[in-house]
Amino acid sequence: MHCIKHLIHINANPETIYNALSTIDGLSSWWTSLTSGESRINKIIEFRFDEPYFMRMKVLELDENRKILWECIEGEKDWMGTLISFDIEGNGNNSILRFKHDKWPTHGDFFSHCNLSWAKYLISLRLYIESGKGAPFRLE
Amino acid sequence: MHCIKHLIHINANPETIYNALSTIDGLSSWWTSLTSGESRINKIIEFRFDEPYFMRMKVLELDENRKILWECIEGEKDWMGTLISFDIEGNGNNSILRFKHDKWPTHGDFFSHCNLSWAKYLISLRLYIESGKGAPFRLE
Repeated sequence: MHCIKHLIHINANPETIYNALSTIDGLSSWWTSLTSGESRINKIIEFRFDEPYFMRMKVLELDENRKILWECIEGEKDWMGTLISFDIEGNGNNSILRFKHDKWPTHGDFFSHCNLSWAKYLISLRLYIESGKGAPFRLE
Repeated sequence: MHCIKHLIHINANPETIYNALSTIDGLSSWWTSLTSGESRINKIIEFRFDEPYFMRMKVLELDENRKILWECIEGEKDWMGTLISFDIEGNGNNSILRFKHDKWPTHGDFFSHCNLSWAKYLISLRLYIESGKGAPFRLE
């Protein structure tokens, strides 16, 4: 099993970061504008990109202002059953976000592509939080 | 041992990508503007960031328009002895760049930080190649 790990510093308090990660509005603002569903325990959030790409995540943990954990239950073959987590460590307005996408069955081109892509969207998350305007995926 | 792997699509031919990776001018344009040394086999390239951060790479391979391999011989403790490679696969102006930073002794916060940082600078590399203007580190 392989794991994508990123760490990013964000000039914001944990509550602001948690809101961007735990609401449909927040997620739409930095990952994909085509986000729908419910961000509640055991409910499903759907993330769409260019047809036919999408993934459905089951919300496993929502620890307020601290941690979010999803399981991918539908989408790309290599993503099925993988776990995606966001851990927030706050110190006033200087927070650290630790991201993990764990339990990858492969470690090849698709893994490498997704590794870069997660970094790109985490930078978009920071931009959204710090400036109010992210760079989520949008249909042309 | 742990490995950072990224894959990025670049709209350019292999020669253009190779030049951005194998010349001091090219490297200064997307990674750090404080790049010096010689990009020749067995010679050293030095990359500086905010004081006291720097690293020195020994050039191990220069396979024209295809591959570049460096060994980190000085810098952050976890980088010592690590291997950094760029593999270019070209198909006209649609090329794929595969990046590896291999032989990491640790897999913690510093690894996760560098993983995000490499992605950021590879996106800067693409920007430089495709638009003529990258986003390298610069002293304020």
